[in-house]
Amino acid sequence: MEPPVKRRRPATTWDVPASNIARNTFNPIRSIVDGMKLTPNPDKPMIALSIGDPTVFGNLRVPDQIETSVIKSLKQHKYNGYGPSTGYESSREAVAKYVSTEKSPVTSKDIVLTSGCSGALDLCITCLCNPGQNLLVPRPGFSIYKTLAESLGIEVKFYNLLPEKSWEIDLDHLEGLIDDKTAAVLVNNPSNPCGSVYSKQHLQDILKICDTWKLPVIADEIYEHFVFSGFDYHPMASLTDTVPILSCSGLTKRFLVPGWRLGWIVIYDKNNVFSQEIRQGLLCLSQKILGPNTIIQAALPDILENTPESFYTETLEFIESNAKLFYKHISAIPGLKPVMPQGAMYMMIGIDMEHFPEYKDDVEFTESMVTEQSVFCLPATCFEFPNFFRVVLTVPQDKLKEACERIKDFCGQHYQKKPLTNGVKMNGHHPE
Amino acid sequence: MEPPVKRRRPATTWDVPASNIARNTFNPIRSIVDGMKLTPNPDKPMIALSIGDPTVFGNLRVPDQIETSVIKSLKQHKYNGYGPSTGYESSREAVAKYVSTEKSPVTSKDIVLTSGCSGALDLCITCLCNPGQNLLVPRPGFSIYKTLAESLGIEVKFYNLLPEKSWEIDLDHLEGLIDDKTAAVLVNNPSNPCGSVYSKQHLQDILKICDTWKLPVIADEIYEHFVFSGFDYHPMASLTDTVPILSCSGLTKRFLVPGWRLGWIVIYDKNNVFSQEIRQGLLCLSQKILGPNTIIQAALPDILENTPESFYTETLEFIESNAKLFYKHISAIPGLKPVMPQGAMYMMIGIDMEHFPEYKDDVEFTESMVTEQSVFCLPATCFEFPNFFRVVLTVPQDKLKEACERIKDFCGQHYQKKPLTNGVKMNGHHPE
Ligand SMILES: Cc1ncc(COP(=O)(O)O)c(C=O)c1O
Ligand SMILES: Cc1ncc(COP(=O)(O)O)c(C=O)c1O
Repeated sequence: MEPPVKRRRPATTWDVPASNIARNTFNPIRSIVDGMKLTPNPDKPMIALSIGDPTVFGNLRVPDQIETSVIKSLKQHKYNGYGPSTGYESSREAVAKYVSTEKSPVTSKDIVLTSGCSGALDLCITCLCNPGQNLLVPRPGFSIYKTLAESLGIEVKFYNLLPEKSWEIDLDHLEGLIDDKTAAVLVNNPSNPCGSVYSKQHLQDILKICDTWKLPVIADEIYEHFVFSGFDYHPMASLTDTVPILSCSGLTKRFLVPGWRLGWIVIYDKNNVFSQEIRQGLLCLSQKILGPNTIIQAALPDILENTPESFYTETLEFIESNAKLFYKHISAIPGLKPVMPQGAMYMMIGIDMEHFPEYKDDVEFTESMVTEQSVFCLPATCFEFPNFFRVVLTVPQDKLKEACERIKDFCGQHYQKKPLTNGVKMNGHHPE
Repeated sequence: MEPPVKRRRPATTWDVPASNIARNTFNPIRSIVDGMKLTPNPDKPMIALSIGDPTVFGNLRVPDQIETSVIKSLKQHKYNGYGPSTGYESSREAVAKYVSTEKSPVTSKDIVLTSGCSGALDLCITCLCNPGQNLLVPRPGFSIYKTLAESLGIEVKFYNLLPEKSWEIDLDHLEGLIDDKTAAVLVNNPSNPCGSVYSKQHLQDILKICDTWKLPVIADEIYEHFVFSGFDYHPMASLTDTVPILSCSGLTKRFLVPGWRLGWIVIYDKNNVFSQEIRQGLLCLSQKILGPNTIIQAALPDILENTPESFYTETLEFIESNAKLFYKHISAIPGLKPVMPQGAMYMMIGIDMEHFPEYKDDVEFTESMVTEQSVFCLPATCFEFPNFFRVVLTVPQDKLKEACERIKDFCGQHYQKKPLTNGVKMNGHHPE
C-alpha cells in the first residue's frame, strides 16, 4: 500500500518564499554599487567610467553595414519562426568559420548560440558543475562567474592574478586550489577588469596544469581580438591537443552590440571527452530557452564575414590610444598605480591606501570621488580585489582628459605624504 | 586548525560527466519524436501538422507595420547597449498598459521582460519552487513545464483535464494532489495542446482552491486573446483579489514572431505577498542573462500600441475557420473523436484505439500515418495524454483539406469495425 500523502492543511495566511536558487542569485556589483552614496557634485557634470558598455557614450557605434545586414534579415520574412535551440545551421557554420584556426578547427556541430556571452557562461557552468563542486575563477575577475555558480550551489574558488606580472595567473596558487571537488577552471583572456592579454607561454602553462589534473576549461574569450599593438591573442583551444575547452564569446564587445544578446559556445574537444555527455547536456540545456533572437542569428553570417577590417582596427586604435593617455596621466598622480592594459577595454588602478587615510577602502575612495568630482570609477571590490578601481577605456577623449584632471585634483586634495601611524588609524577606519 | 584540503591526484584519463541539471533536462517531445521512424511516403508531399510555429507555412506573417517599428528602433542607434536586466522602463510600461485591465491594473514595476515565454516560465518556476517541492501542471499539457521543473529537481504532479468537459480541470483531482510540498499551481489558458478557453466560473473555481490552500499561480497566458467567437478570455488575475499570480506571455504567438524571443512576466499581487521575496528573486534571476534583445524591446511600445486590430482579427478568423473545417472533416471519420477547440491554435483528436488494433498507441498510429500518407500529427503522448493526437490549425486551407482527405484514407484502411476480443488483444499490444 502507498503511504498516505502528507496533506497540507488549508492555510489562513499567505507565505510564498523565494527558492534557494533565487536567494542565492546575487550580483555583487549591484549590491556594492547600490550600497554607495552616489551624489555627484552639482557643479560638475557626471563622468561615469564605471560601465562596461562601449555604446554608452555614443562615440563607438555599430557600422551601418551591420545594421543593413539585420534589416535584410528582417525583410526576408523567413526568420520569424522558431530556430533550432542551438541556433540556425548556417549561423553556427558562420561562427565556426569565424573562430576556427589551423590548430583548432571546428564545424557548425561544435557551436551553440546563446543569449549573450552570459547565456553561454550560464550553460557551460550549469553543464559542467554540480552543487557542492567548485569552479576555479580569477581574482580579480568578472563577477558573473560567481553569480552564476553560487546561484546553483556551486562553490567558486578564487585563484590570484598578479598585478606586478601584468595580471598573469599565480600558477602555484591555482594548482594549490584544485581538490577532489574541482569541476573546471575558468580562464578569462583578454580580461575584464584587468585588460591583460596572456602570452602563448602563459596559456600553455595554464593548460599544462589542466592537463595534469584533467580539468576542462571554460574560456571566457568575449574580448577575443581586442588586443593592443605588440600583443597577440591566442585562443586557448589553439594551444592544446588534450584539454577539452568550452570557449564563450559573442557579438557583444567586438561588434559593440551588448543589447543584442547574441553569444556562443565553441566546443573544442579533439579527443572526444565532451562527446560522452557534455555535448548532449549543452543541447538539452539550450532547449530550456530556445536560442537567441532569430533576426540577429540570420544576420550573423553577413556580420561575421563582411564587417570591414577597418571597423575593428579603428575601434581598437581608439581604445589603445585612450589606454596610453589614461596611463600617462594617472601614472603621474601620487598615490595611484595604474597597470597598463594589453587589450580589452579596461584599466585597473591601484590605490596606495595608506596615503589616503581618510578612506577605509576603494569603495569609500570612489564614492568620495563622485561626491567631489562627479567621476565614477568602479571600486575593484566588485571584482573581489579591494584597493583598486577600474576605469573603462571607451570614453571620448575630451571626457577622458577631463576625468584625469578631476582624478588628479581629487588625489591632490586627499593625498597624505606621511602615512598616519597605526596608533591613529585603527582597524583600517579613519579618525573623524 | 583547518582540516587538510582533500587533494585530488593527478589523473591519467579524462572523465567529464555532465551535471545533474544537464542530465535531468529533458524534452519529452524531442525524445518521443526522435524515437519515431518518420519516413514519409515518397509519392506524397509531406504535410507537417506537428509544429506549434504559426510561421512555418508562410501564410501567416507579421504585419509590415511591426517590421517597420523594429527597423525604426534599429536605426535610432540608441538601443544597442545593455538595457536593465528586467527590460527598458518604457518597454515595461508598454506591456503594463497592454495587459492591464480595470480589475487587474499593473505598472512597469510589475513587468519583467524575458527571452520568450519559455524564459518567463523558467524564471517563475525557478523562483517559486525548490528541489523536492512539487508543481501542479495540466495533463494534457505543454511539455516545457516538466522540462524546466525536473531540470532543477522539482517534481511535477499532473492534474487531469477532462476532454468531455472541453478540457476543464478535474478540480477534485487537482485539489487531491496538493500536499505539504506543493509550491505552486500552473494553469495554461488558452491551452496548448487542447485549444480550450476557460469560462470565468471555471477560473474562479480554480482560484478558490488556490486561495484555500494559499498556493500562488503561474498562469501561462501566451495564447491570451487567441479566442474564437462566442468565447471570452479572462486573465486569471482579473478574477481574484487574493491569489498572487505570475502571468507569462509574450509576442511569440499573437504577433507571429516565435524567433524573436520576447516574453514577459506580469506580477499580479494585490496583497503584497510577492513583495517579501519573489519580486527580488525574479529581479536577481533576470541578472543571469540580462534580458531579451534590446532592438525588439525598444520596438515594443509601438508594436503593442499600434498594431492594427485587423491583424489580430484576420489571424483569428483564419484559425477559427480552420478549426471548424478540421472538426467537420475529422468528426466524420470513424474511429476519430476531435474535441472542438475554443481558441489557441490546436485541436486534440482522440483515437478509438480498439478500432485500430494494428497500433499499440498514438505514437505508432501517427508514425504509420507518416509512412503511408505523409501527414505528421504530434502523438499526444508528448503531452502525457496517450491515444490522442494534436493538429495545428495554422495550415493553409488547401493543405488542411488535403490532410483531412489523407487522414480519412488512412483511417478507412485501418479501421476495424468489430473490436478484437480481449483474448486476442493482450496487454494492449496488437498481435502480429
Ligand atoms: C569578461 C566578460 N564576460 C562576459 C560578459 C558578458 O557578456 P554578454 O553581455 O555578451 O552577456 C562580459 C560583459 O561585460 C565580460 O566583461
Ligand atoms: C503553452 C505554451 N507556453 C509557452 C510556450 C513557449 O513560448 P515561447 O516561444 O515564447 O518561449 C509555448 C510555445 O509553443 C506554448 O505553447
